[in-house]
Amino acid sequence: MIVGIVGGGQLARMMLLESYSLGLRFVTLDPSADACAGHVGELIQAPYDNEDALRQLAGKVDVVTFEFENVPDTSVHVLSEQLPVYPPPEALGFSQDRMAEKNLFTELGIPTPSYLPVDSLPELEGAAFELGMPLILKTRRLGYDGKGQYRINARQDILTAWEALGGVPLIAEQYIAFDREISIIAVRGQSGETRYYPVPENTHRNGILHLSVCRPGDPRQADAESYIDRLLDRLNYVGVLTLELFEHEGRLLANEIAPRVHNSGHWTIEGSQTSQFENHVRAITGLPLGSTAAKGCSVMVNFIGNLPDRVETLALFETISFHAYGKEPRPGRKVGHGTINTVDAESLEAMIPELSRIALSASEAMTSSPLVATARK
Amino acid sequence: MIVGIVGGGQLARMMLLESYSLGLRFVTLDPSADACAGHVGELIQAPYDNEDALRQLAGKVDVVTFEFENVPDTSVHVLSEQLPVYPPPEALGFSQDRMAEKNLFTELGIPTPSYLPVDSLPELEGAAFELGMPLILKTRRLGYDGKGQYRINARQDILTAWEALGGVPLIAEQYIAFDREISIIAVRGQSGETRYYPVPENTHRNGILHLSVCRPGDPRQADAESYIDRLLDRLNYVGVLTLELFEHEGRLLANEIAPRVHNSGHWTIEGSQTSQFENHVRAITGLPLGSTAAKGCSVMVNFIGNLPDRVETLALFETISFHAYGKEPRPGRKVGHGTINTVDAESLEAMIPELSRIALSASEAMTSSPLVATARK
Repeated sequence: MIVGIVGGGQLARMMLLESYSLGLRFVTLDPSADACAGHVGELIQAPYDNEDALRQLAGKVDVVTFEFENVPDTSVHVLSEQLPVYPPPEALGFSQDRMAEKNLFTELGIPTPSYLPVDSLPELEGAAFELGMPLILKTRRLGYDGKGQYRINARQDILTAWEALGGVPLIAEQYIAFDREISIIAVRGQSGETRYYPVPENTHRNGILHLSVCRPGDPRQADAESYIDRLLDRLNYVGVLTLELFEHEGRLLANEIAPRVHNSGHWTIEGSQTSQFENHVRAITGLPLGSTAAKGCSVMVNFIGNLPDRVETLALFETISFHAYGKEPRPGRKVGHGTINTVDAESLEAMIPELSRIALSASEAMTSSPLVATARK
Repeated sequence: MIVGIVGGGQLARMMLLESYSLGLRFVTLDPSADACAGHVGELIQAPYDNEDALRQLAGKVDVVTFEFENVPDTSVHVLSEQLPVYPPPEALGFSQDRMAEKNLFTELGIPTPSYLPVDSLPELEGAAFELGMPLILKTRRLGYDGKGQYRINARQDILTAWEALGGVPLIAEQYIAFDREISIIAVRGQSGETRYYPVPENTHRNGILHLSVCRPGDPRQADAESYIDRLLDRLNYVGVLTLELFEHEGRLLANEIAPRVHNSGHWTIEGSQTSQFENHVRAITGLPLGSTAAKGCSVMVNFIGNLPDRVETLALFETISFHAYGKEPRPGRKVGHGTINTVDAESLEAMIPELSRIALSASEAMTSSPLVATARK
């Protein structure tokens, strides 16, 4: 069986590396000739909306999936006319539009911060009045990693925010001074069989995920499972689905969904019985799902912009799993991650500060390097 | 950095899949266009002694290694003139000649069954007298998986054995009715840094490995480490080295070495902090070695000839890691393996009989199928 993936970045790459052992083969589609999944498998180089390329992909594979949610409608249409496409296109639709997504949470009784649509400056002023401040103004479509967002703390920010983002459909959301962020990752097979990974606790920096720490037995596990379950059923979902949640005053609030494998689940490669990547591929190819049970505790740290020195990192942490994606360094780019897996939570906690420091210092060296800044101009 | 591998079978394939995450790239050389490592990386298709192809490989990569020991001398020579070659060619030499290998054990004080060179029928008769029977007659070169061996139980077998194997240099070895077989896998870096995996206990069927079971804390671990340590130092070894051992009457006897990653170490992918494949690649590329500590207990079962039904196997064992090599079924061929990793030994023991049964029944179905037998004629 051959699996097609639209998108050839690190998520596709890890799907391949984690699932070749099932005896499958893969073809990815990506506009970049150097797409990192292409280093480890067959790549069709073409824009995502190139219909010839999409038909070529469909002709080579038995099933198609996506490594990102902002797939052009035409692409999904061309593909689903020819072969099974998972997750279901409807799920992509919800995740592409923050307003539709929030309405879906509301429809399913999943608590979420209050929100209002904003299509004009008066509507934004009305939202600030009704929701209170601070609030977060976001583009309804095509936002990721904190891009397309503006935080409005007080009246004088409203015009600036409107000037920064206005002109496209927006959504205003109540700002939540949350206690922590978690995410629930679940996988649902073609028969409806569903499994949930233990939730990790996530820390962001500059809008990008920095750390995910999974300590099995999280007190919010059951709530998180109940919420994602409603989404999986409503969407008749097949594959891995992620739901990001805030914990605030003792309850969970849904932030957003990602209809795909997720950065906050990278720890599952070493830290669970079956990784999110393999389970996604099992689901879309109709194979039985693997156990999602955690093996001990895990921490994953993202390498943003640049990798930390490989020799130094491997020497410092003899149990680290170092994941370099084969991507060129560039400020803000996800170029790799590291995972450490331990039997108990105490040993894990002891390593987190140093692990975080190493990742951030490589990242900051990149951002502040005049050489790199020049090269990118 | 780019790594070259002579041989594109499942060992090379697993080296790639386990080490891409270090940010490395790979080129393999194999005579078969369908070599299974070629499914997951760049392949040069050419015979192993094709000097043009070897030079082409050397021109593309920074360091070269081997997935098997029977590399033609010329190939090693062509390569080592141009770039670093690990493990050291001398180690290949010893493992290619059972007589040289046994003499090396003797030189290093590593106990091994008694042996004698045999180059004629009278020498074989002399060996039978001196070593006693049963004894095992083996070709000195190019034997693997029980091929090129003949067991002599009594005087009347001597002539038959000679007729089966005679004409090439042979070795006669005392037959050991061992209590069990174990193997020690160690990795040595370019700086001499050495690490040892916990020894697994191995069970063969028809001369081919069937099961490897690793329960950390084996009472023979220290002896095994001491023996392989002598070999690593003597050979100034770099990479993974395997030493197969018999346990007999409370002591270990060396059977043979394999200067490479080994089938009895496949469990390390899931069952140890750093797999044998990744540690071999770390060693030959000069990276710090990763921890070889076991994560709980593991069992690996080989899939010989044919894979067991994937759906049935995954449904039966929700924690199995299923490894299909992407090879066409053929009687006696290693086409995949499965690993189960548990926290405690009891849960592991409970699963071994069923796991073994599934693997053997797929294998036997293959061997007894008239269709396949016909197709292979």
